[in-house]
Amino acid sequence: MTWFNTPLTERLHTQFPLIQAPMAGGVTTPELVAAVSNAGGLGSLAAGLLDPQEIRAAIIAIRELTDKPFAVNLYAPQPWQEDTDRIQQVMDLLSPYREELGLPSTPPTEPYQPNYSEQLAVVLDEGVNIISFAFGLPAPEEIETLKEWDVLIMATATHLLEGILLEESGVDIIIAQGAEAGGPRSTFVGPAEQGLVGTMALVPLLANHVKIPIIAAGGIMDGRGIAAALVLGSAGVQLGTAFLTCPESGAHPDYKALLAHSTEINTRLSRCFTGRLARGLKNRFTEDLYAHETEWPDYPIQNALTHDILQAAARQNRSEFMALWAGQGCPLCTDKPAGELVAHWIAQAKEALSG
Amino acid sequence: MTWFNTPLTERLHTQFPLIQAPMAGGVTTPELVAAVSNAGGLGSLAAGLLDPQEIRAAIIAIRELTDKPFAVNLYAPQPWQEDTDRIQQVMDLLSPYREELGLPSTPPTEPYQPNYSEQLAVVLDEGVNIISFAFGLPAPEEIETLKEWDVLIMATATHLLEGILLEESGVDIIIAQGAEAGGPRSTFVGPAEQGLVGTMALVPLLANHVKIPIIAAGGIMDGRGIAAALVLGSAGVQLGTAFLTCPESGAHPDYKALLAHSTEINTRLSRCFTGRLARGLKNRFTEDLYAHETEWPDYPIQNALTHDILQAAARQNRSEFMALWAGQGCPLCTDKPAGELVAHWIAQAKEALSG
Repeated sequence: MTWFNTPLTERLHTQFPLIQAPMAGGVTTPELVAAVSNAGGLGSLAAGLLDPQEIRAAIIAIRELTDKPFAVNLYAPQPWQEDTDRIQQVMDLLSPYREELGLPSTPPTEPYQPNYSEQLAVVLDEGVNIISFAFGLPAPEEIETLKEWDVLIMATATHLLEGILLEESGVDIIIAQGAEAGGPRSTFVGPAEQGLVGTMALVPLLANHVKIPIIAAGGIMDGRGIAAALVLGSAGVQLGTAFLTCPESGAHPDYKALLAHSTEINTRLSRCFTGRLARGLKNRFTEDLYAHETEWPDYPIQNALTHDILQAAARQNRSEFMALWAGQGCPLCTDKPAGELVAHWIAQAKEALSG
Repeated sequence: MTWFNTPLTERLHTQFPLIQAPMAGGVTTPELVAAVSNAGGLGSLAAGLLDPQEIRAAIIAIRELTDKPFAVNLYAPQPWQEDTDRIQQVMDLLSPYREELGLPSTPPTEPYQPNYSEQLAVVLDEGVNIISFAFGLPAPEEIETLKEWDVLIMATATHLLEGILLEESGVDIIIAQGAEAGGPRSTFVGPAEQGLVGTMALVPLLANHVKIPIIAAGGIMDGRGIAAALVLGSAGVQLGTAFLTCPESGAHPDYKALLAHSTEINTRLSRCFTGRLARGLKNRFTEDLYAHETEWPDYPIQNALTHDILQAAARQNRSEFMALWAGQGCPLCTDKPAGELVAHWIAQAKEALSG
């Protein structure tokens, strides 16, 4: 099985070079993370939007289900601008939806996001030794701290320059997020529209220019994609959408049902939910509001402005108001358990690589 | 060498499952087409914008350089709307550039494109037995005629529904054009923005749903990409951008020089040159005019409206007015001869597939 012994499995101490992507909104339950790690991959807890105490509880719950390695994902702090006028305009735009959902029209107040330093402190305090970052680059002094704590650092690049910056900063592993990927784009240099490079082009380009291991992400849905990513020059793969419909996934049942009948031409890149460009299935919210695409305030403000809408949508089973993150491979989703999927994909990748 | 014996090499009678993409604007010289075919791949003549007599001359010239199979590419006829007001508006928008290039401001007159039936008649008369189509589906009676002439028919899909339609129509081989690809998008069902599916997601999806061979195109720049496409489930690959900078390519020297220093984040999807959404390097023309992106008339009108500008730009070495088609893998371009590239890529693909 030399195919699956890569610089990634050596660094992660996993059986297979396969990571379950961190997916916010309650998708990465302890059950999902543990199932992937127990199956020989690396589960990831999406902790970027969780409060420190929620992160601690989740880590403890994962540890009750597995003694294998897993990762915690945080959002690297990023610049954003407060804009009171714009917040009021967006509140007005969203008020018909709030009314429909029976929500009061109260603008959110700061803090718009959980405290990043407290999040990181909890992760370190819990002894997690693999942290992945989205949305940017941790500060130099943080990288130093993480190295002192013997933490393996993964961070996300959407184009070559970001990959080079990550390598220079001391990051251990680069996650190459291709344009096919679901959820928010991780672009941190230049506009997100510029960072929409397909996985097929992005991985070999990074492999030519950086020495640290690269994880391919975006459009990979099964063993064929895993095999393709490895021969392209990646040391492993990260799959998100392919795990969304697992029984262990915390995705809303209506969201899972929509994925089961999705088509690859039914995703949309939009900033309407979080302020960051993100790929998900079209629904009433994305389509109604697409004309306002340039008006949303930066993340995390827009995220705070839609938070109650998303929560009410989940409670009331109103998928037309949910953030239905999905990559372009979404029609290949299946409802098999996560551990079974990992075993099946590895067998399929082996088969694909045997000629 | 079982890896490179695929349903494609069986149908094409080539040594390798590798096609040089048809690229308009004089790129696919007889020298380029013949060099690829002589090296064991399949060269393609881009004939969609050529007059029948130019097509005949090119076919004769190719045959003087190779006795191996090659393909001719045509544009399947597509619906478009005449719009006199819009033509005048666009003439006004383009007049400063015409002035700068010393061109008269005379609107083009019909026909806006070469006669398709005459193009096809010449190709058949010359006994070409592989025809690939871009921009759509040949009419049922044409497909019947082509089959009577024993012509192998390839056509281009950008999403699953198009692939299914092509298979049902009797096409022999589907070219799956991923979003990474350079040049015009071939989308013929739905808006072109919807048909921007990355190669990594598109190929396995098509492979699950159609039985005829699939050629992966978009983002493939070398042996790693070729190997990846094969394990993804394609029967072969089509590379365009990777041949642009070959000495045999007819691309303008300034265009080749820009490709040699290009970055993957410097391409832009725009309709400004032809009226069809197309990917190319940004230049003054694409950036100046991007605000007018929704105003261009359909192909072939916009193509006719910019024709003299592109010709003058080439004569005057003004790359700021050229259509610099490029896929997202453009930084991986090299200036090696086409035959050498094919041999190198096949060796590299073999290496990538050996684990």
